[in-house]
Amino acid sequence: MKIAIDAMGGDNAPKEIVLGAIKAIEQYKDIQITLVGDEKQINAHLTTNERIDVLHTEEMILPTDEPVRAVRRKKSASMVLAAQAVVDGKADACISAGNTGALMAAGLFVVGRIDGIERPALAPTLPTIDGEGFLLLDVGANVDAKPEHLLQYAIMGSIYAEKVRGVSKPRVGLLNIGTEEKKGNELAKNAFELLQKANINFVGNVEARDLLSGVADVVVTDGFTGNMVLKTIEGTALSVFKMLKTSLYSSFKSKMAAAVLKPDLVQLKAKMDYSEYGGAGLFGLKAPVIKAHGSSDANALFSAVKQTRNMIENHVSQTIKEAVEIESSK
Amino acid sequence: MKIAIDAMGGDNAPKEIVLGAIKAIEQYKDIQITLVGDEKQINAHLTTNERIDVLHTEEMILPTDEPVRAVRRKKSASMVLAAQAVVDGKADACISAGNTGALMAAGLFVVGRIDGIERPALAPTLPTIDGEGFLLLDVGANVDAKPEHLLQYAIMGSIYAEKVRGVSKPRVGLLNIGTEEKKGNELAKNAFELLQKANINFVGNVEARDLLSGVADVVVTDGFTGNMVLKTIEGTALSVFKMLKTSLYSSFKSKMAAAVLKPDLVQLKAKMDYSEYGGAGLFGLKAPVIKAHGSSDANALFSAVKQTRNMIENHVSQTIKEAVEIESSK
Repeated sequence: MKIAIDAMGGDNAPKEIVLGAIKAIEQYKDIQITLVGDEKQINAHLTTNERIDVLHTEEMILPTDEPVRAVRRKKSASMVLAAQAVVDGKADACISAGNTGALMAAGLFVVGRIDGIERPALAPTLPTIDGEGFLLLDVGANVDAKPEHLLQYAIMGSIYAEKVRGVSKPRVGLLNIGTEEKKGNELAKNAFELLQKANINFVGNVEARDLLSGVADVVVTDGFTGNMVLKTIEGTALSVFKMLKTSLYSSFKSKMAAAVLKPDLVQLKAKMDYSEYGGAGLFGLKAPVIKAHGSSDANALFSAVKQTRNMIENHVSQTIKEAVEIESSK
Repeated sequence: MKIAIDAMGGDNAPKEIVLGAIKAIEQYKDIQITLVGDEKQINAHLTTNERIDVLHTEEMILPTDEPVRAVRRKKSASMVLAAQAVVDGKADACISAGNTGALMAAGLFVVGRIDGIERPALAPTLPTIDGEGFLLLDVGANVDAKPEHLLQYAIMGSIYAEKVRGVSKPRVGLLNIGTEEKKGNELAKNAFELLQKANINFVGNVEARDLLSGVADVVVTDGFTGNMVLKTIEGTALSVFKMLKTSLYSSFKSKMAAAVLKPDLVQLKAKMDYSEYGGAGLFGLKAPVIKAHGSSDANALFSAVKQTRNMIENHVSQTIKEAVEIESSK
């Protein structure tokens, strides 16, 4: 299988992107990678050309670019060419650690939606205490969602959890302000009714405070709320670690103790780091499009390739297409 | 000034509620407290009757009661009688640590809205790294908010932050998925325009990941999103502490170090505990109605009384009324 990677996207591009790609090539003998970006910069880190080639372009999308406009105007940008490689049949999927909004636009306008999918969803896997993680969708592809969108997210998320993460009968929860039926805003109430009737393992409403305890394998919500929850988890975990650090270094005695605990704390921080679970999938497109975290290092990029390979191997896009056809013919 | 307290609400009622009330009476010589609830149970903990009296009732609202129905049917419930005392002029404000939904209903149907306020907002003060805290509104009084509601939240929050928390020109932020103008869902985009024109110190959009860093003093959002953010902060902080504990007790060496650090960790946990900042105010009502945290102990209840006293002393309800009149006459 063939994967196109935007080598110029993310804080540590192209070095860490290239190193991550090399690691993936070494690990998986069945993949071929095309790195898209500035040949000279890429070659400075590329130590092999076995099953890895470079598609040269000097144009790139910046983190500050207005997403939709950038994708429409910068037709030779590394991210856009990676998406174009999928359309042209030169790649089965694409990955970028660059501008999230632009990747969503490239996914939508270049790769294209699956027939029947109304809105794609951006879906990261977030950490849980037990290390299993849960899939949250949508976290911002579609900020004004309708109940039907949430139903499609639930179907897509179930397929992904089952096929790629190996969860049997994934528990799907609806993010809501309480666990009781009939709770929530208009969107949540109407989505609840649709989810109850769908061919998924719907476990009802789930509350935000129980997410990290692993209350569900797949959690659906609108893109605005999902984005808030994602960033609140991130911000709260970072703030607690920051306060912990300040607290631990406040006296000599605690400094000594902190030194002993450092390996535990580093490990704990890694556990909260969702790039360990791969990138965020853009679900509902004709082929897998994966957003690796902006701060991806070689390991995070490697995780994203592993995940993408899994999605291709398990025909996630095709399965979603079939499931949506069945659901809409009901 | 006189404060009515529902002595039967909350996990530790009536004992901790009574002890908190006694502490407040001792601290503030200018307040009188009426404890509403079962006389026999209250008297078991009441060691003084100086400026403190009991209004006896045996009926109470349970945490599991359906809020609106409970308030309408249980007319002699301790919570309802506390609200009624405010209407009857026997108290200037009321406090309960009981069923949140029921207190919102009692506030709305018994105490009543200020003329011109379309929807009351439930507003807790949440922790920040610097210990200053920020006011978040709404966290669930109104799950389907309109832009005009968010404008009123901003005005009410500004007044509270200035009058009660002593923040000069409080920075008001709109919770959104990005800091740039024109970001967000329809609600956020339309609210942004209204907030820009209002007579407040509007600092624009703020992201959820920056909340605990103290990016604003007052943050406005709809009740659905606010509830998610509140519970995500709670859940994430608890999960991190839980993982930390597991991690620290995993080896003898780290157990020793953890023992040294315990006081620091306890202090840190307290810093994340928002009951330290008092209860959540129900803003937009004719008199202050305060929701103390369900797990309130005597200290948390004391903080809620302190906050309520501050709201009465600084005429928060009256100031909100005047500000809303000015805004709507524009």
